[in-house]
Amino acid sequence: MKNVLCAKCVKCGKTYAATPNLTNCACGGILDIVYDYEYIKQNLTKEKLKSRPHTMWRYRELLPVEESTPDTPLRVGWSPLYEADRLGELLGVKKLWIKDDGQNPTASLKDRASAMAVAKAQEAGAKIIACSSTGNAASSLAGNAAAAGLRTFIFVPERAPKGKVAQLMTFGANVISVQGNYEETFELSKKAIDKWGWYNRNAAINPYLSEGKKTVSLEIAEQLDWKMPDYLAISVGDGCTIAGVWKGLKDLYAIGFIDKLPRLISAQAEGCHPINRAIAENKPWAPMEENTLADSIAVGVPRNADKALMAIRESNGIAVNVTDEEIMAAQKLLGTTCGVFGEPAGVTGTAGLKKLCEQGIIGKDDTVVSVVTGNGLKDVANAIKFCGEPMKLPNDLDALVAEIGKRGLKTE
Amino acid sequence: MKNVLCAKCVKCGKTYAATPNLTNCACGGILDIVYDYEYIKQNLTKEKLKSRPHTMWRYRELLPVEESTPDTPLRVGWSPLYEADRLGELLGVKKLWIKDDGQNPTASLKDRASAMAVAKAQEAGAKIIACSSTGNAASSLAGNAAAAGLRTFIFVPERAPKGKVAQLMTFGANVISVQGNYEETFELSKKAIDKWGWYNRNAAINPYLSEGKKTVSLEIAEQLDWKMPDYLAISVGDGCTIAGVWKGLKDLYAIGFIDKLPRLISAQAEGCHPINRAIAENKPWAPMEENTLADSIAVGVPRNADKALMAIRESNGIAVNVTDEEIMAAQKLLGTTCGVFGEPAGVTGTAGLKKLCEQGIIGKDDTVVSVVTGNGLKDVANAIKFCGEPMKLPNDLDALVAEIGKRGLKTE
Repeated sequence: MKNVLCAKCVKCGKTYAATPNLTNCACGGILDIVYDYEYIKQNLTKEKLKSRPHTMWRYRELLPVEESTPDTPLRVGWSPLYEADRLGELLGVKKLWIKDDGQNPTASLKDRASAMAVAKAQEAGAKIIACSSTGNAASSLAGNAAAAGLRTFIFVPERAPKGKVAQLMTFGANVISVQGNYEETFELSKKAIDKWGWYNRNAAINPYLSEGKKTVSLEIAEQLDWKMPDYLAISVGDGCTIAGVWKGLKDLYAIGFIDKLPRLISAQAEGCHPINRAIAENKPWAPMEENTLADSIAVGVPRNADKALMAIRESNGIAVNVTDEEIMAAQKLLGTTCGVFGEPAGVTGTAGLKKLCEQGIIGKDDTVVSVVTGNGLKDVANAIKFCGEPMKLPNDLDALVAEIGKRGLKTE
Repeated sequence: MKNVLCAKCVKCGKTYAATPNLTNCACGGILDIVYDYEYIKQNLTKEKLKSRPHTMWRYRELLPVEESTPDTPLRVGWSPLYEADRLGELLGVKKLWIKDDGQNPTASLKDRASAMAVAKAQEAGAKIIACSSTGNAASSLAGNAAAAGLRTFIFVPERAPKGKVAQLMTFGANVISVQGNYEETFELSKKAIDKWGWYNRNAAINPYLSEGKKTVSLEIAEQLDWKMPDYLAISVGDGCTIAGVWKGLKDLYAIGFIDKLPRLISAQAEGCHPINRAIAENKPWAPMEENTLADSIAVGVPRNADKALMAIRESNGIAVNVTDEEIMAAQKLLGTTCGVFGEPAGVTGTAGLKKLCEQGIIGKDDTVVSVVTGNGLKDVANAIKFCGEPMKLPNDLDALVAEIGKRGLKTE
């Protein structure tokens, strides 16, 4: 990889050659991929990008893959960035865009990391990729690997919802339901990965995965014609995504494609916000309970807190926590004003933005991009609980007229 | 509309000016939009298309909208066309592509029709669009209308699944749950549409909607660089989609963009195949029971049978019926070999193709495109029933080793 210098531990600074099988530093710290920006500057221009396919692989010079590594088969990335003028007006900001990353092949931003895992597994000559997860990481890995003809072993705790297991099975994953909690599930996956040498798809262990995730901000920048907004709002769970987002922005800044870095808005659930608590109290993070319905960000022990905290602090970011009710209100608001249906964790960034607008922290002079990280079809159960009841009527026009009148609905 | 000559009844031949509010012919027949192909030939080139946005609106010269009508806001269309080499080899065909139309904003091909409904409603000056449906038509209308700032009234039978109602409510639709069966639901919607003059989004009544649907075949042709396959396989319910697909192909043939028309493969469920029965027996269609789990094509009284039958016959098409088990096997096959998760009705075209391959009707000299019309996340319940059970194990590597051995799974 001519564009990559090395991998460097964010904790102790030790550097490693960027081989495909990298995991954590010997000190336990997470590695960060270091690029040769001079090389990239000489080889990538905005003009060159224009004619490339609309997938995350259009940004090859900024990605840690060999030139000979093929694009992965599913169409990952280049999700739509919608101008959300009606919602922006409601919130009282100058300009708002919604990046709907639920429009990825397996319906979440995680496809970006899983596609990267598939590419790196192929470089490593691996035929099997493994992870432990019940959520979007698992389904995106299963789907992207299946499309590439790679096999997967996916470890889920026994409490994993049947629907999610069904999706994994449909993609042909070997699914191991571990009798025990998530910690035990993770342990068994680790032992198995060590024994068989499977490729490890774990965003906080494999340093390449957040490089896949960063493509979401590369796209936002390009879709905005490289004119960056004041803020970028996103939900935060184990920290890999917001760290990836920030990495992408810094890359673009380093090669001179953008001349401004947006401030990050880190949105977490009131019931589980260890990263935001560390920001608010300016202390190291500590574990928290996981009391939120936004399952994809219910992470009490964030595995990538270090990178996330650095990203939020470097960007002079804002941490905001929202209740489950505020999350579900944001889901409905995105649906009614933008036609975007996000899963609870997916809309938490927008919920956080709304709260900051209500508090007067963000307002009429500000431009914002809010990323929706997953599709609402992933979790219909919560939408059912919060969406309200339809009108229930007999086949009788008079009854309909009366009901519409009672509710004060406009009929024209 | 300089590109449109008129609308013409497929039954009696009567013509109408192509006003935005068109419904059926006075004789009850369905109208078809007639284009001025000479005008289109002079105004559209393959070269021109290359620089256009990747949505269905790139084909404006072939669509029945005014030049001044804006593109609708959600990113509808330009779904991925995957080269499915592994699946093609398994089925024994020369070349197979999968068009994954579940990758649309509300996760089905119906977004193409609903985006058209929004565009035409805006031309008609309407602020409200109505339909009766419990399925993909309803959710796509609710989402596309919300994004455009239009309101919707959507009538569903009381048996409509809560998850689908939740999706409609999240998009802000006014949902009326009618105490009665689908027929009564439809009746009340008709009375309400007549009373308030709402714009009518019903694919078998509004002739513009299948013009939206046809964009799926326009895209397939362009994505294949205008080299058409021998066959195009698609599932068939009320007939609007296959009719639209055929219309798109004929349009391209008429303007000289393609020089070959693929034969259509009309796939229906064994438990509900009124259109395919009419083809097989070469008779007019008659109603059938609706005994299939593929809910989106469980249509015993197809409302667009005339256009569908004409399309299948004109193309020298093949009708094939598949059991629910064959449908669910196709779902798994698409998942494991392509990383594509389709809903049961969405994968019925592929199930039909598989059957024709097994029967030796389609084989090693044939090239095929199979369209997946909706996303599997729309109906996880059936996937759960058919996907099999994961391995259930304690956190014990020896137990895992034993289980993997017992199942004969490859670990490298």
